[in-house]
Amino acid sequence: MFEDAELGHTVDKATYDARVPALRSALLDAQFALKDARAFPVLLLVGGVEGAGRGETVNALTSWLDPRHVEVNGLGEPSDEELERPRYWRFWRALPPKGKIGVFFGSWYTYPILQASLAKGRTRWAKLDNRIDEIVRFERMLSEEGALVLKFWFHLSKSVQKRRIKELKKDPLTRWRVTGTAEEYFAKYDRFREVSERTLRHTSTALAPWLVVEGGDRRYRELFVAEELLRALKTRLDAPKTARPTPARTGDAPEVDGRRTLLSELDLKKKLAKPAYTKALERWQGQLALLTRDKRFRDHSVVVVFEGNDAAGKGGTIRRVTRAVDARIVRVVPIAAPTDEEKAHPYLWRFWRQLPRCGQITVFDRSWYGRVLVERVEGFCAPYDWERAYGEINDFEEEMTGHGAVVVKFWLAISKDEQLRRFKEREQISFKTFKITEEDWRNRKKWDAYSDAVCDMVARTSSARAPWTMVEANDKYHARVKVLRTLVEAIENVV
Amino acid sequence: MFEDAELGHTVDKATYDARVPALRSALLDAQFALKDARAFPVLLLVGGVEGAGRGETVNALTSWLDPRHVEVNGLGEPSDEELERPRYWRFWRALPPKGKIGVFFGSWYTYPILQASLAKGRTRWAKLDNRIDEIVRFERMLSEEGALVLKFWFHLSKSVQKRRIKELKKDPLTRWRVTGTAEEYFAKYDRFREVSERTLRHTSTALAPWLVVEGGDRRYRELFVAEELLRALKTRLDAPKTARPTPARTGDAPEVDGRRTLLSELDLKKKLAKPAYTKALERWQGQLALLTRDKRFRDHSVVVVFEGNDAAGKGGTIRRVTRAVDARIVRVVPIAAPTDEEKAHPYLWRFWRQLPRCGQITVFDRSWYGRVLVERVEGFCAPYDWERAYGEINDFEEEMTGHGAVVVKFWLAISKDEQLRRFKEREQISFKTFKITEEDWRNRKKWDAYSDAVCDMVARTSSARAPWTMVEANDKYHARVKVLRTLVEAIENVV
Repeated sequence: MFEDAELGHTVDKATYDARVPALRSALLDAQFALKDARAFPVLLLVGGVEGAGRGETVNALTSWLDPRHVEVNGLGEPSDEELERPRYWRFWRALPPKGKIGVFFGSWYTYPILQASLAKGRTRWAKLDNRIDEIVRFERMLSEEGALVLKFWFHLSKSVQKRRIKELKKDPLTRWRVTGTAEEYFAKYDRFREVSERTLRHTSTALAPWLVVEGGDRRYRELFVAEELLRALKTRLDAPKTARPTPARTGDAPEVDGRRTLLSELDLKKKLAKPAYTKALERWQGQLALLTRDKRFRDHSVVVVFEGNDAAGKGGTIRRVTRAVDARIVRVVPIAAPTDEEKAHPYLWRFWRQLPRCGQITVFDRSWYGRVLVERVEGFCAPYDWERAYGEINDFEEEMTGHGAVVVKFWLAISKDEQLRRFKEREQISFKTFKITEEDWRNRKKWDAYSDAVCDMVARTSSARAPWTMVEANDKYHARVKVLRTLVEAIENVV
Repeated sequence: MFEDAELGHTVDKATYDARVPALRSALLDAQFALKDARAFPVLLLVGGVEGAGRGETVNALTSWLDPRHVEVNGLGEPSDEELERPRYWRFWRALPPKGKIGVFFGSWYTYPILQASLAKGRTRWAKLDNRIDEIVRFERMLSEEGALVLKFWFHLSKSVQKRRIKELKKDPLTRWRVTGTAEEYFAKYDRFREVSERTLRHTSTALAPWLVVEGGDRRYRELFVAEELLRALKTRLDAPKTARPTPARTGDAPEVDGRRTLLSELDLKKKLAKPAYTKALERWQGQLALLTRDKRFRDHSVVVVFEGNDAAGKGGTIRRVTRAVDARIVRVVPIAAPTDEEKAHPYLWRFWRQLPRCGQITVFDRSWYGRVLVERVEGFCAPYDWERAYGEINDFEEEMTGHGAVVVKFWLAISKDEQLRRFKEREQISFKTFKITEEDWRNRKKWDAYSDAVCDMVARTSSARAPWTMVEANDKYHARVKVLRTLVEAIENVV
């Protein structure tokens, strides 16, 4: 992996000076084509050994590019707001929009490599491999969403690094560059090399490759990075739009046993009488109120997802939840059309940005599951894209639960007849008419397709730590109490 | 101020039950009209004494409204990311967009009132009045930008508050509501009353009034708040679009002494020879590098504003600055057309959201001054709106400098002839052609109007702590060195 980068590559001044003007002009052209078309986001990751000129190279590169469309992220220690969210939150937060180049010093590679280099014991390789696995999935998602991901690893051989650190320390103008960490790294050179090599090998993919740069010569590394970036930009800008692959299975389930499904097996007759409802509501709301005021609650965040048939009573149920909780710690996020900033990012971005801090609850009224429900049924995205979404959503939710968040997901199910009754009723009551639209009637015509999508969704995204709860919602009382009880029990599990 | 709210208002159950359905329906209608038209943002501030039912009332209100278009902000202790920005940053961050209702528990009133209630000594009233003054200016800006600002103060008389706290403590289901703070407040009831009364009196304005609610009776306070909100929403939604007032002075300065201006007095012949430039550049870049690596630098943020004639060399100058600094701590923010999220907020919002943390530098390539430059000259906003912007911008920058930020603003000035020469030159060099557009030629035709705007801008927004530096930029070497030196000296002043 590092052999080529220990050959002692150099570029002489004459060659460098001759190449830079044309290179710079071509880079700017490519950057402007990228910007004008808002074609895709570019992620440029910078990693490697200390003293290999990462900062200087990026500085040179940004001075050649138009710095207004480059965002350099130096992700060091996470802030408290970042610590209160899943680990990848800070990276999502820093993702460049379409048309921009985001440079990441310090990325999702930094801590895994550092930890594995410093750790001892048998489990460290296993832990590293877990991290690698997450990274590969994350980067694949980025690529599938159209991002151009380029990763540069700045390498120095052991002897060259030793010399370089000595030089830097001699000069008062560069002394600051040698941090304590640099020397610490150096002491662990061999281990660090072993860990990084494994990481690079396992995370270098066709769509998100690692490019190893020899860092000893300023002119060489600058030309190397700039030429690789230029080539990648041009290649991608010129690439023909390829058709999305056809997924191995399509949405419609074959009929095998008369279509017994998760939905058909629901007992929609479940009911609760008013007195029992009032009592149960009070009980679970009271419990929720107490739980969310518990000191231990402050260490967790709660994410509640509401999906369901139109008119299944999501709104009323959500209000029964929010009513029980101090209004200051809960936020309802309605999912409507994305804003233009949201459209310029991967589809999960707008959900990541809404994730609650610890001690806070976010209720999503519709959610990221739109991708495998309405977008699937209405054909708003290609089958390949909603097929891959199941895995991406699972990763997203694992990030949350891995951080200690409580994730609760409800499907509010009503029968087709009950829906019709409610649509008609809503058209009669003035303060409910806003709830019924043309779209609702249109969706109703696709009842079966939606049912298939729901069953797939539950089958493929329900997990022990982020389970789906199917709620029989023909009777609103039953539904509300079931939701509240489920939520309370889920919070009790962690608090 | 509080007399009416100590009369013992109550509403009986029958009246309440009779009024709620129609009220709720009307509220939803108004809310949907608001949402559909994305008409304006609504800010609903909630303050008052402990135990007066603020939380319960907001809960009731949000359960009547569609909670998907209401954002309740419980602003308690600021996070570290908030502490590293000017005080109002967290409030800007929480501002609702057009079409939404933002409820603020804990607002810009909380700390000023709390501090004045707990503080001793002579200066506390003076300090309070300073805060009040800021608040009035902030809220005026919000109103001018179209926001509907409603402020509810929940009041209880001393004897009623005492009784209420006792009741709450008795019931295990409500005991959690009585925080330590509540009892502390109570001990300071008289002082708190005095401070709040003064604050309310001075901050109650035609466009952002305080409405004092008696908090003793649940039904009364719920109806009171809901009816006031409804009335305000309807009034504003039905209000005819009024013409903007005519400001006292218009942009064009009368000629008194042959148009001697800040710009005409600049000596654009200032020059630096290449050898002197190279030496000076190295010196100031080195100094900047050292300064920004100083430990004390981490306690400050730096905001650099670049404005200037088209082709004045902003880009090249910015690169000389960013080159000297570790790429991880600097961000260049180009100001182009606002996104739709930005358009849904007051015009300063998109700059607030970019303010750097401590230890970071943000370089604005064009800035909030667009309002008093291009928007003024091109007539993109009414004279009244850019006239008021000077004051709003001064407040904005005072917020920054008050927080310890270094604010440096550069106007890069070139002569009309020099601009023409550069336009023509740019059309020749391939990697610079992207820099010259139709718009540049159009702007050039309005040279005098822009010059007037620049002189006004400097005269009205240059302050001791956020001064403008006029940079003679016909000679790029001179300009770059002057910018770097000014920036270094400004940072040295605080580090």
